Amino acid sequence: MTSQLFEPGVQETLDLVGIFVFALSGGLLAVRKNLDIFGIAVLAEVTALGGGVFRDLIIGAVPPAAFQNMGYFLDPLAATLVVFFLHPEVQRINRTVQLLDAAGLGLFCVAGTAKAHDYGLGVVASVALGMATAVGGGVARDLLANELPSLLRWDRALYAVPALVGSAIVAGLITVHHLTAVTGTFAALSAFVLRMLALRYDWRAPRAWHRGSASPEGEGDGG
Amino acid sequence: MTSQLFEPGVQETLDLVGIFVFALSGGLLAVRKNLDIFGIAVLAEVTALGGGVFRDLIIGAVPPAAFQNMGYFLDPLAATLVVFFLHPEVQRINRTVQLLDAAGLGLFCVAGTAKAHDYGLGVVASVALGMATAVGGGVARDLLANELPSLLRWDRALYAVPALVGSAIVAGLITVHHLTAVTGTFAALSAFVLRMLALRYDWRAPRAWHRGSASPEGEGDGG
Amino acid sequence: MTSQLFEPGVQETLDLVGIFVFALSGGLLAVRKNLDIFGIAVLAEVTALGGGVFRDLIIGAVPPAAFQNMGYFLDPLAATLVVFFLHPEVQRINRTVQLLDAAGLGLFCVAGTAKAHDYGLGVVASVALGMATAVGGGVARDLLANELPSLLRWDRALYAVPALVGSAIVAGLITVHHLTAVTGTFAALSAFVLRMLALRYDWRAPRAWHRGSASPEGEGDGG
Repeated sequence: MTSQLFEPGVQETLDLVGIFVFALSGGLLAVRKNLDIFGIAVLAEVTALGGGVFRDLIIGAVPPAAFQNMGYFLDPLAATLVVFFLHPEVQRINRTVQLLDAAGLGLFCVAGTAKAHDYGLGVVASVALGMATAVGGGVARDLLANELPSLLRWDRALYAVPALVGSAIVAGLITVHHLTAVTGTFAALSAFVLRMLALRYDWRAPRAWHRGSASPEGEGDGG
Repeated sequence: MTSQLFEPGVQETLDLVGIFVFALSGGLLAVRKNLDIFGIAVLAEVTALGGGVFRDLIIGAVPPAAFQNMGYFLDPLAATLVVFFLHPEVQRINRTVQLLDAAGLGLFCVAGTAKAHDYGLGVVASVALGMATAVGGGVARDLLANELPSLLRWDRALYAVPALVGSAIVAGLITVHHLTAVTGTFAALSAFVLRMLALRYDWRAPRAWHRGSASPEGEGDGG
Repeated sequence: MTSQLFEPGVQETLDLVGIFVFALSGGLLAVRKNLDIFGIAVLAEVTALGGGVFRDLIIGAVPPAAFQNMGYFLDPLAATLVVFFLHPEVQRINRTVQLLDAAGLGLFCVAGTAKAHDYGLGVVASVALGMATAVGGGVARDLLANELPSLLRWDRALYAVPALVGSAIVAGLITVHHLTAVTGTFAALSAFVLRMLALRYDWRAPRAWHRGSASPEGEGDGG
């Protein structure tokens, strides 16, 4: 099992930290959207666990890990309480939340890619699914909140590219049979550092060429 | 099979009633959104069957029941015709529709929790999935209609909490090995009564504390 | 395997053409929504593969074909590059794109219905799933782009009905044991021609009767 890179206890602690931070981001969006405590809990759960549940459904690992490990499920509820009572304080440490979110991004793309490969997926599919594990929860969060997914917006700093890089490094390591706790940590750190740099310098991806000739948004035919 | 609480014929009749009423709620939203008859049918199907399909995918019960029982699939099409030809009449009996919807909520959270537990999920996960069975179709309906899910809005009477209570009672009954047709009916009735009271007295869930310090909706960063 | 209607090479070529054109439609919407190149790639992948992934999850064919055949996954990325560099040219040949999209609709509803039946689904469920294979990607595309699904809007030419007709013909052919490459092509062509006629003459589905009594859109209660 290449997806078990670390000691079980270490792995679970890392997972719980990543889940908690992703849940915070879901809960904070719920507060901004004026939702009640139940809405906060739903967005926290979906943001934290959505990517992993999608991955597990695709690879056939049912019931998904999120429904088998009670800790994974209760963790976002703890984040819900933190957001409910302390959201101004959480927003005040926004930079810390972004830093932890970047760490979660790194951890989840590595674990997702490794697990997908464990279940027999090819290299390209494993990279795609690793990336989806890391970013899927945020997309589900934005869909439920009825917003254009932050992931897709050009006016946001790169988010998917760091996850893609981390996943690709893991896939490369698997191909040359050198995925270990040390090299896996390196892959996660690469995604983490890239995300922090993208935030610091506001790196963005390019939009289509010759946009002037496109019809303005809202006028187009949706299908 | 604890999920087979009632005689098969009784169970199927209850299921069909619940599916029909959920489908009505989907069809009525489609009419309000000015969709054509095909859009009415899609929202009717999704609202009625979405929660159960989600549950069955998570527990690995594929193909989902909705794709194996032709009655479950045709039932929402009957509701589509009713809405298409008689929607003013259906809206006029809105209180009756709400009452039947509350009954469906009670039935689905009980059946969903019991089925999840049958498939080996733990108590907490079974409660979560029972609740998702009851409310998931409505969330899918609102997503397709491009609206903020009614479930998440603070200005709506409690909907998820009654389902949660019904699911939790079932989980408690399973734990003490006392889930029967009688006690299962009690759990469904508890959810039903709680939902009707929430409607009657407009009970709502609280929003986050200290909201004044949150940025107003729409200004926030989505990710 | 009735879903293998054609020689493997022919089948795969047809699949790749259909996937490419669906991906173009996703990419073009992304450009209209002002998304970056990554958003174009995501909408291209989701539009092209979403319907098939949904079908495969429902019938239990995991991992879905899109995650097992690298060509299916890379194909939308090629469409992404075409849209990124040449989208004004792609929009200029909009009629050609619509024609190819109609061809994709025909191919996918036939293949989807046949595959669903191969996996043991009944006739009605196979028709429903064949239609979902053909239109599901477009719905996922519109959801991610935060738009009311084009499929559901009454002011768009018929899209689901041609897929329904194609799927129903396939189901009929399966029932009388006469589904072959020739009759399957006939079913796909029927859907294709119907879609082209709907576009040419702007055929639409009816909305609910007595709409005057409905509250205007936006005023209604969402749940």
